[in-house]
Amino acid sequence: MSQTVLLLLLFLLSSLSPLSFSDPDPVLDFCIPDAGRGPIQLTHLPTYPCKNPLNVTSHDFTFSNLKPPSHLSGFAGTAVTPVQFPALHTLGASFARADFEPGAVNPPHYHPRATETALVVEGAVYSGFVDSGGRVYAKVIEKGDVMVFPRGMVHFQMNAGEERASIFASFNGENPGVVKLPVTVFGSGIMEELLEKAFDLSEREVERLKKIFGSK
Amino acid sequence: MSQTVLLLLLFLLSSLSPLSFSDPDPVLDFCIPDAGRGPIQLTHLPTYPCKNPLNVTSHDFTFSNLKPPSHLSGFAGTAVTPVQFPALHTLGASFARADFEPGAVNPPHYHPRATETALVVEGAVYSGFVDSGGRVYAKVIEKGDVMVFPRGMVHFQMNAGEERASIFASFNGENPGVVKLPVTVFGSGIMEELLEKAFDLSEREVERLKKIFGSK
Amino acid sequence: MSQTVLLLLLFLLSSLSPLSFSDPDPVLDFCIPDAGRGPIQLTHLPTYPCKNPLNVTSHDFTFSNLKPPSHLSGFAGTAVTPVQFPALHTLGASFARADFEPGAVNPPHYHPRATETALVVEGAVYSGFVDSGGRVYAKVIEKGDVMVFPRGMVHFQMNAGEERASIFASFNGENPGVVKLPVTVFGSGIMEELLEKAFDLSEREVERLKKIFGSK
Amino acid sequence: MSQTVLLLLLFLLSSLSPLSFSDPDPVLDFCIPDAGRGPIQLTHLPTYPCKNPLNVTSHDFTFSNLKPPSHLSGFAGTAVTPVQFPALHTLGASFARADFEPGAVNPPHYHPRATETALVVEGAVYSGFVDSGGRVYAKVIEKGDVMVFPRGMVHFQMNAGEERASIFASFNGENPGVVKLPVTVFGSGIMEELLEKAFDLSEREVERLKKIFGSK
Amino acid sequence: MSQTVLLLLLFLLSSLSPLSFSDPDPVLDFCIPDAGRGPIQLTHLPTYPCKNPLNVTSHDFTFSNLKPPSHLSGFAGTAVTPVQFPALHTLGASFARADFEPGAVNPPHYHPRATETALVVEGAVYSGFVDSGGRVYAKVIEKGDVMVFPRGMVHFQMNAGEERASIFASFNGENPGVVKLPVTVFGSGIMEELLEKAFDLSEREVERLKKIFGSK
Amino acid sequence: MSQTVLLLLLFLLSSLSPLSFSDPDPVLDFCIPDAGRGPIQLTHLPTYPCKNPLNVTSHDFTFSNLKPPSHLSGFAGTAVTPVQFPALHTLGASFARADFEPGAVNPPHYHPRATETALVVEGAVYSGFVDSGGRVYAKVIEKGDVMVFPRGMVHFQMNAGEERASIFASFNGENPGVVKLPVTVFGSGIMEELLEKAFDLSEREVERLKKIFGSK
Repeated sequence: MSQTVLLLLLFLLSSLSPLSFSDPDPVLDFCIPDAGRGPIQLTHLPTYPCKNPLNVTSHDFTFSNLKPPSHLSGFAGTAVTPVQFPALHTLGASFARADFEPGAVNPPHYHPRATETALVVEGAVYSGFVDSGGRVYAKVIEKGDVMVFPRGMVHFQMNAGEERASIFASFNGENPGVVKLPVTVFGSGIMEELLEKAFDLSEREVERLKKIFGSK
Repeated sequence: MSQTVLLLLLFLLSSLSPLSFSDPDPVLDFCIPDAGRGPIQLTHLPTYPCKNPLNVTSHDFTFSNLKPPSHLSGFAGTAVTPVQFPALHTLGASFARADFEPGAVNPPHYHPRATETALVVEGAVYSGFVDSGGRVYAKVIEKGDVMVFPRGMVHFQMNAGEERASIFASFNGENPGVVKLPVTVFGSGIMEELLEKAFDLSEREVERLKKIFGSK
Repeated sequence: MSQTVLLLLLFLLSSLSPLSFSDPDPVLDFCIPDAGRGPIQLTHLPTYPCKNPLNVTSHDFTFSNLKPPSHLSGFAGTAVTPVQFPALHTLGASFARADFEPGAVNPPHYHPRATETALVVEGAVYSGFVDSGGRVYAKVIEKGDVMVFPRGMVHFQMNAGEERASIFASFNGENPGVVKLPVTVFGSGIMEELLEKAFDLSEREVERLKKIFGSK
Repeated sequence: MSQTVLLLLLFLLSSLSPLSFSDPDPVLDFCIPDAGRGPIQLTHLPTYPCKNPLNVTSHDFTFSNLKPPSHLSGFAGTAVTPVQFPALHTLGASFARADFEPGAVNPPHYHPRATETALVVEGAVYSGFVDSGGRVYAKVIEKGDVMVFPRGMVHFQMNAGEERASIFASFNGENPGVVKLPVTVFGSGIMEELLEKAFDLSEREVERLKKIFGSK
Repeated sequence: MSQTVLLLLLFLLSSLSPLSFSDPDPVLDFCIPDAGRGPIQLTHLPTYPCKNPLNVTSHDFTFSNLKPPSHLSGFAGTAVTPVQFPALHTLGASFARADFEPGAVNPPHYHPRATETALVVEGAVYSGFVDSGGRVYAKVIEKGDVMVFPRGMVHFQMNAGEERASIFASFNGENPGVVKLPVTVFGSGIMEELLEKAFDLSEREVERLKKIFGSK
Repeated sequence: MSQTVLLLLLFLLSSLSPLSFSDPDPVLDFCIPDAGRGPIQLTHLPTYPCKNPLNVTSHDFTFSNLKPPSHLSGFAGTAVTPVQFPALHTLGASFARADFEPGAVNPPHYHPRATETALVVEGAVYSGFVDSGGRVYAKVIEKGDVMVFPRGMVHFQMNAGEERASIFASFNGENPGVVKLPVTVFGSGIMEELLEKAFDLSEREVERLKKIFGSK
C-alpha cells in the first residue's frame, strides 16, 4: 500500500461521519461508541464506532457516577448523555441530576429536543414551566413527586425548603440540549439596541447584564 | 335514557377529540377540516372532521390573504397554520409573514416544533439566532436572502434599513408554536425571587418588567 | 343518574386510554385528557378531549402518588402512564416504581414500545437484559446506579441484598407496554403440543405451568 | 331511546374524528376498527372505534380472501388495506395481489406512502422502476424472485411469459396510495395546453388521450 | 496539489451530499458539512464531517444566491438543498425558485419526500395538483398567493399572464427529490411495448416521445 | 489480490451492516451498500459507501435466492435483510421464508422492530400471537391466508397439516430483529435462582433447560 493511500486512510479514520443525527427508532439492539478505537472528531464532540458486542459487558449498560457534588455552592446540574454514558447512544434516552442549596435557583431554560420528567429525590422545590401561550404552571413539589416539563417549554426551579434539595430528571431523547435564557439573551452578543427594545431595558441595564452573563 | 345522560352526550358533542397531535407522515393524501360540518371544541381551538374530497376544490389549497398589514405600527407578524388555512392540516408545513417599520424589532423567540427558513421579501433586516452553546449567529440580510433558524433555537430580527422590511417564513411543521421570551420570562407570573436571582435584577426592576410584559 | 351509568363511569375512569396510537412529536404544547368532560367511546376504552388550558393548573403536571406500597409481599411494580397521570399524554414519556423484598424477583419481561432507564433508589439489585443474539448483560447494581434496557429487549431483576430494594424507572414512550414472559408463554393458552416442543418440556410439566400462570 | 338522542347519535356517527392520519409507531398493541359499532364518516372512507379486545378473536388477524380473480381479463390488482382487513390499522403494513394474463400490463404508477416488495408467485414478469434521476432498473423476474420498489418511485410490470402470472406485494405502510400515471396525467383534467407543451403532443393527441383515460 | 486532485476536489465541492439518509428530528442544534476537512467517500457522493461550531459564522446560515436567472428561456427551476446550502443538512427543510416566461410550463412532476408550499412572488400562474383518486385541483394563483402541494402528489404550473412569473417554494424535507413525468415515462428506457399498452399510443408515437425525452 | 485481502473481503461479505441505526424516512431514492469499495469501520461490523447509481443495475433490486431448503429437518427460517439483499438498506422493509415439516414448530419469538405479515404459501399452519394483556389469538391458517403479528408481540407457528408447509413473511423494517424465547430465557445465562422463581421450576429443571438451550 502506498504512503499516499495510508495517509488518506489515517485521515479518514480521524474524520469519520457521525453515527446518527437523530432520535429515531433504533435498527440495532444498541450501539456503544467504542472509545478504545480512537476518538473521531466528527462533530466538535468526539464520536466513535460501535463496540463489538463480543467486547460489551454489563458494565457498559450501567452508570455509577451520578453522585451528589462534593462541594455544592448554590445550584449544580449534571447531565448524563452518550458523552458520559455511551450506551445511551441511539436509545433515545438520557438523564440528569440537579442539586440545590436552600434558596438556590435553576434559571429559566428549556430543552429543545426532549420532554423531562423530574423526580424530587430530596427536599422541596418550587418548580414550574410556561406554555407557548404565556401561562405559568408552578408549585412546590416534594420528595417522591414527579413533575413533567413538555418538550421545548421554558421551565425553572428554586429550592423552597431549608435543606439541600435534589432532583433526578429523565429525558426522552439522547441529546436534549439546554438553552439557558439569561446567557442566551444577555450573554451571547445579540445587538444591544435590539435587546433594549425587546425587553424595555435602558442601554445601561443591558450593558450591565451583558457583562454579567457574557462571561459565563 | 335519563336527562343526565342526555346532557352528558350534548357535552360530548362539544368536546370531540383532536384530529391529530403530531407532525408525522400523512396516511391520506390530505385531510381538510370541514368547518361546514360544525365546529368541534376539541382543544381550546376548534377542530373538524375531514371534508369529503368530492366537496374539495382548488380554492381549499390556496391561501390568498397573506397581505401586508394596512396599518403597520412597529412590528407585525402573521402566522398561517391550519387554523387560518385548513389544507395544511396533516401536511407538516405552515408559514408566516412579518413586517417591520424602520428600527422595529421581532423580539427574541423560538419555535419549539419547527425549523424556519426566512426569505427577505423587502428591505434589510438584522437577523440571527443563538445556539444551545450560547453562540450568536447574526448579520444583516437583504432582499432575496434566505436565513435558516434551526428548530428550537432562539432567534430575533430588527429592521436595519430606512424603509419598511418584510419577510416570508416557512416552517416544517403544522403548528410550530412560538415562545416569546420577554412575555414568557417576565409576563407569565414566575415567582419574582427566582427571576431576580436568575437574571441578576433588583426587585424593582423585576416588578417594572412584570408590569410591562404581564399585560401583553 | 342510575347506578348502571355510575358504574359505567367508574369503570371508564379506571381505564382512561390515550387519544392517539403513537409516540410521535407532539403538535401541541400538551393535551391533558379531560375526564371531567365525560367519556368518549373512541376505542374500546373511553378517551377524553383535551382540557381547556384555562382550566389546567400546576397540579395537572405533578404526580404525587409514587409511594412505596404499604404492604409489600415479594415484588410490586407500579406503572405511571397517562391512565394514572393524564399530563403524560402525547408527551412520549412515562415512568414506574418497583419494590422488592430480599430475594424477590421481577420476572423476565420486555417493553415493546420504550427504552427503560432504571435508577436504584434503595438497596442492591441483580439486574440485566438479553440482546437479540442471546447474550446476557447482568450485574448487581446499587443505590444511585442507573442501568439502561434497550427497547424491546428481555430484562429482569432480583433483590440481591438483605434489605428492601426499590427502583425508579423512566420510559421514552407514553405507553411502553409490558410483556411478562411466564404468563405470556405458559399462561395465555398457546397449544400445549407447541410449548412442549418449543421448550423441550413434558406434557405434565407444561400442564403444571399452565395452571400456575394461567390464573394470573 | 328518544328521538333527540337518536339524532344526536346520528350526528356523532357522522362527525367523529379520525383514529390516525399517519404511519407512526403504535402506542397500543393493535386497534381493530369496530364495524359493528357503526360506520363513522370521518374521511370519505368510514372509520371506526377500536373493537374491545375482549371481542377480538384470531379471525380478526387473518385475511382469507386473497384469491385469484375468477374472471381475469388483462390485469387485475387487489389491494388489502385496513378498509379490507381492519387489523392492519395502526400497524404500518398492507399488501396486495396482482394477476396478469400473458402480455398484460400494470401501467406505470407509484405509491407515495410505502416501499413495495413484490414476490412473484407464478409466471415471469418484466418488472422495474425509474429513479428520480430518470434511470430505469428493469428485468424479467420469475417465480420465487422478490423485487423491491423504493417508496415514491414510478414502477411498472408486464407479463413476459406465456402463462398467467401473479404477484404478492407487501407495503411498509397502512395506506400506500397509488398514483396511476396515464389517468393522473391525461384523465384528470389538467389544462390541455399545459399537457401539449409538457409532453410535446398535438392538440388532437391530447384530446384522444383525455377521452381514453378521462372515463376511467 | 496535482491537477487531478484539484479536479477531484472541484467535483466534490459541486456534489456535496447529506451525511444521513433520513429527515428525522435532529439530535444536534445543527451540523454544517465541513468541505474544508476533506471528502469522505461514504455514499457515491462525498460526505463531510460537521464543521466545528467555533468556525461556523452567520454566513453559514444565509443563502444569498437565489437570484432570477439572467437569461430566462421558457421555464427555469433552481432547487436549494444541502448541496447548495450546507446549513440545511439535518434540519428537514429546503427551498426552490421557479421562473416562467409567459406561457412557459413546469411539466407534471412530484416530490417523493416533501410537501411543497409555493408563494407567487410575481405574475399569475395556472397551478394545481392531482390526488391519488385522479381528481385535479387547479386554478390561477397570483402575486402573494400560496398554494400547497401535498407530499408525493403530481403537480404542474404554467405562466398564465403576459409578464414573467416567479415562485418561491418551500419544502418540509432536506432532499425532496423531483420525479419529472415526461422524462421518467418516455425518456428512461421503459420497454416500448409496455408504454404503448399503458398509454394507448402507437409504436411510432412512443418512438417519437422516446427521442424527445430520452436526450434530456 | 492477496489472500489476506480476499479473506477479509469474504468476511466482510458475510457481515455487511447497515449505515444507519434507524428505520426513518429515506432522504435518498435508495442507497445500496457498495462492498466493492472497501470496508469502513463505522460499527463493529464493516459498513460500505453507497454504490454509485451509475453502477447500479436491475439485478441490485432483485433477490432470487429465496428457495426452499434442499434438506429440511423440522423447521427452517431464512431472513432476508440488507445483509443478504443490500438494496433493502434505508428502505424500511425486509422479508423471510419459513418451511415446516409436518408437526414442526417455530418456537415463540418476537420481532422488536417490525410488524410481520405472514402469507401461507403452502400447507396449513397453527399460527398465533399473544398480546401484552396475555390474550392469545391463534388458529390454523391455510394456503393463501395472511396473518398479521403486531410489532413486538410474541408469536409462534406449528405445521398443522400432513404435508410440508411454507410461509412468506414481510416486515415493515430493515432489521426487525428476532428474540427467540427458549434461548433468551434458558440459554443466555440468566442467574438460575431468578429463573427458578420466575418460572416456578426446580433447580434441576432449570439446569436441564440451560443445557438444552445454552448450546444453541
